[in-house]
Parts: sequence; C-alpha cells; structure tokens
Amino acid sequence: MEVRRHNAAFCSPCFLRHCREQVSRTVEAFDMIRPGERVLVAVSGGKDSLALWDILLDAGVDAAGLYLGLGIGDYSDASGGRARAYAEARGAHLVEIDLPADLGFDIPAGAAAARRVPCSACGLSKRHLFNKAAVEGGYDAVATGHNLDDEAAVLLGNVLRWDLAYLGRQAPALPAGAGFVRKVKPLVRLSERETAAYCVLKGIDYIVEECPMSAGNRHLGYKEALNAIEERSPGSKAAFYFGFLERVAPTMVAAAEEEREGLHPCPVCGMPTVSELCAFCKLVERAGGRPAGRPLRSGRSGPADPAAGRPL
Amino acid sequence: MEVRRHNAAFCSPCFLRHCREQVSRTVEAFDMIRPGERVLVAVSGGKDSLALWDILLDAGVDAAGLYLGLGIGDYSDASGGRARAYAEARGAHLVEIDLPADLGFDIPAGAAAARRVPCSACGLSKRHLFNKAAVEGGYDAVATGHNLDDEAAVLLGNVLRWDLAYLGRQAPALPAGAGFVRKVKPLVRLSERETAAYCVLKGIDYIVEECPMSAGNRHLGYKEALNAIEERSPGSKAAFYFGFLERVAPTMVAAAEEEREGLHPCPVCGMPTVSELCAFCKLVERAGGRPAGRPLRSGRSGPADPAAGRPL
Repeated sequence: MEVRRHNAAFCSPCFLRHCREQVSRTVEAFDMIRPGERVLVAVSGGKDSLALWDILLDAGVDAAGLYLGLGIGDYSDASGGRARAYAEARGAHLVEIDLPADLGFDIPAGAAAARRVPCSACGLSKRHLFNKAAVEGGYDAVATGHNLDDEAAVLLGNVLRWDLAYLGRQAPALPAGAGFVRKVKPLVRLSERETAAYCVLKGIDYIVEECPMSAGNRHLGYKEALNAIEERSPGSKAAFYFGFLERVAPTMVAAAEEEREGLHPCPVCGMPTVSELCAFCKLVERAGGRPAGRPLRSGRSGPADPAAGRPL
Repeated sequence: MEVRRHNAAFCSPCFLRHCREQVSRTVEAFDMIRPGERVLVAVSGGKDSLALWDILLDAGVDAAGLYLGLGIGDYSDASGGRARAYAEARGAHLVEIDLPADLGFDIPAGAAAARRVPCSACGLSKRHLFNKAAVEGGYDAVATGHNLDDEAAVLLGNVLRWDLAYLGRQAPALPAGAGFVRKVKPLVRLSERETAAYCVLKGIDYIVEECPMSAGNRHLGYKEALNAIEERSPGSKAAFYFGFLERVAPTMVAAAEEEREGLHPCPVCGMPTVSELCAFCKLVERAGGRPAGRPLRSGRSGPADPAAGRPL
C-alpha cells in the first residue's frame, strides 16, 4: 500500500499500524477522547465510519455506534445493513434512529418540502440528531469519520467563500458547551484511500456506493479540484488542511465562539439554537414530520446501553 | 458578450464601457493611480497587458509600456512584435529590456544554471527589472495585467500553503517604499475571457499562445481547478478573491510589512533585498550574465522619455 504524501509504502500489518498510529496521534494532539470516556460514533455503513469505529474499539475505547436511517430507499437499506452486521460481529452497541419511523419524514421528501438541497437537509438532520442522541445518552463525545479528503474539501469550500464563522468551527475537535457535546474527527490524518484499504485488509464489509442524492453536490466538485492538485503535488491536501489548523484557525476561533453566545434551547426539542425554533425542528415542521421533543429510540445490537434514551 | 458572474450580457459598445468601468472602479477603490502620475505598464504582448495599456491610454493616463525580452525563441520574437506594433500604432512610448542583449542570459539557460523552474526565474526577473526600470525612469507606479483568473489562482496557491507573507502581499495595490515603486493590478475585476474579448473588439493584435515554458506549471493547475468550480458556480472566483481582500487580507498585511523592515540595497544593482546579494543578481551570476548595476537601455517606439535610463 503506497501513501504518496508520506512518500512511503507499507505491507499489510505495517499499514494497519500506520492507520492506528495516525488516529492515536490525532486523538492525543487534539485531546479528543480521555481515558474512561464514552464515545458515540456516527456510523453510516461506509468505509470511514466503520474504520473509525473499528480503530476505536481495537484501542479499547468505550465506543457505541449511532446509525441514522435517512429513508433514501435501497441506499439506506444497504448502509444500515452494513452498520448492523458490523455491530453484530463485534458485539458492539448500535443506537439506531430512523427518520421515517421515528420522526415521520425522509430526506428526499423533507428536503423538497423545506426547499433545501438534499445534502443540506441531511447535514442539518445529522448534526442535530447526533448531538441530541449523545446528550440524551450521556456520551462525552460524538466521533465522525471525516477524513483528510473530506476536511480539505470542506476547508476549500469555506475558503472560497471566506466564511469566517465556518472556518472557525473547522477544527477537528470542538469542545462541549452551550448544549453541544464535544465533536471529534479522529480520521483527519487519513485519506479516503487509506480508510478503504483499512477496511479491505480488516475484512470489514462497507457500502461502496456514494449516496444517490449527492450527485452534482458542490462538495464533490471541491474534492475533484483538490484531487487534481494532489495528483500533481502529493501532500498538497495535508499541507492545506494542517497549515490552516496551525497558522490560521487560531485567529478565527473568536468568530465561531461569538456565535455560541446567542444560543438558547429550542422550545420544541431542547437543543441549542439562535433562532426561535431550531433549524431542524423547522425542517421537521415543513416536512410534515413529528416534533422531535421526546427521547429517541435506542439500539438493537450488542449490549444494552443504560444511559441511552435518557431524557434531557 | 455574456458575463455569467454578473448575470449580464453586453453589446459591443456596452461591453467596452463595462471593461473601462471595472478598471476605473478598481483604480479608484485601491487608490492605484492619481492624476498627473506617470505609469509604467508591464507589456508582454498578450491580451491582458495590451488591454490594460489601451484602457489606461484611453483614460488619459500618462502610461508608457515596458517590454522585457526573455529570450524564449519564437515566443519572445512574436510577443515583442505585438508590443512594438501596438506602441507604434498608438504613438505610445515603449521601454525595452532584452535579457540576452542587455544582461547576457536568457530564461531557459538562466533557469537551468540557477536550478530554478523557468517560471520562477522568469517571475523573479520580471519583478526585479520592472521595479528597477520604474525607479530609474522616475515612474510613480508599475501596472501589470494580472486579471481575476490570475489573482484567484495565485490566491489559491498561497492558501493551499497558507503562506502568510505571500498572502499579505496579494493586495491589488502595494504601496511604494523601501526601494519599491507602487505596484498596481487594475484588471483584477476582469476575467481573461473579458480581456480577450476587449482586444478582439478593439482590433488589438495580441499573442494567443501561452508561453512554451509554462507547461505543467502549478499555477495552470490552480487555474484549471478554479475554472471547474466557476463552471458549476459562476461568481466563485470573484467571491473568493474579493472576499479575501475584504475580510482576511487586512489581518495578514502585518506579516508582509515585517518583511520589508529587513531590506537594504543590493550592493550590485541597488535594488532592495534581505540577503547580501539580491536574488536577481544571484540568478545573473549563476547564469553567467552581466551584472545589472548600470542603467537599463531605453525604448525605441513613440516619443522620447526624458526620465528613462536615469541612474539611481
């Protein structure tokens, strides 16, 4: 396995160790997970989130999975199946939330009703429900499988618009506070080629297809642009992302922190918001779904989670 | 002529007025040229620099051209011919410096001898000689034909490396000081499609070919990446570049200003440098050229320039 930006090639055992070391280095550098903490891993059934869950479990972290059923036809069925199969095989606890069953709407219809592009409605729902499930379940952190390619593409999008508040929130670890649990991205030192290879080598069955709703999405355009640049100059993405974190992000954190100051609990769901009703509850209302005030349903696989489903 | 980022289409006279207005708006906004000032326009024979010179002359600016012969075979012959023909037709003054004749080296050989990529040796030579010619000729400013596509691509390159000193110097007008004349880029509100159309409509014959040495250059890769993004979202480049100037550049100017503090005159050529010998004189030395201490040769077309060739 060749990793051009490190100018290195690995045999299988060394490659797996490389992946684990990149994750542990990231977790330590950004103080992401402390000993004894309970972590909720957002699991989509794709290579990144399953690799992340696997690496955390192998490292002895108390990590439960959270699968969010988006109601995107066959894609959701297949991705949920992969998440459940992995949890079953590992004997790990998987929390499940199903948008159609639990909240009465799905992403395609909800996005159309709310006049949002599907990726926007989906991202909003994920951010909201991951946080809500972690708060209600008493988890210390939500971990997501964003990799270096993802973060570099998000950074490029934010830089193209010079959105200072978004740029200030791009750190791989956002502290808890004001109704948010800590959010961490332990895979930011691994590319998507590496997480895919990790899963193949570990025999983890993941969903290969991209979400069918994401075609034409800007984020994919930013990824393509960066891939072309990385192809000419290996290491460009890492230099772009880590250079930002080291030299620029510290000057932009103030803008993101100011935003948190105006937050108060949403009267329907209790999650933090700056507007009267939070953006997710507005989406649910427009999509004709059920209000998300009550605690969410808990998981089916693995050991029972005593804290899951605990109301706020 | 359609300009998608402005969501507008123009007839010929309105398009020419649009170009002039974008330039005058830029010149005023950044205080680039004041009434009565003498401007030296860096003219390559391409669409951008000839359009710039034409717009400045039409606006009544006292603008001489400066053509730098790089010694790149047929390309230099053809580009010099376009610059001379335009000067002749307008009765405008063209200063000429020829690297092989005046300094005893050319870009291909000089770059190889100095172990620089050609675009690096060329950019260094241009920056140095434009400034030297302007200082010696008593000009108030050097104007270059960098357009929106150029500046957005340079910005992307600087952002990918988060080079704060370069980012601080990316403003379209850099003030005079410490041995530098003012440097201005009045075309930053026009895309290269617009400067090409301007030349076609005004009957200006420009060299269409890209420099043969530039193939594979990173800057072209950044342009391609941004073109793909602009194609999906017209206006992306302008939002990227002007968003940077408005919201971010002011915080980065300090880094660039600090750099100027350590400058002193190069003992060979008298131009400002931080090292003992300036980078251009080092290039000349390695390329086996003649030291650039003496005043440079003056132009051949148009009215005589009393200040040209004046020693420092």
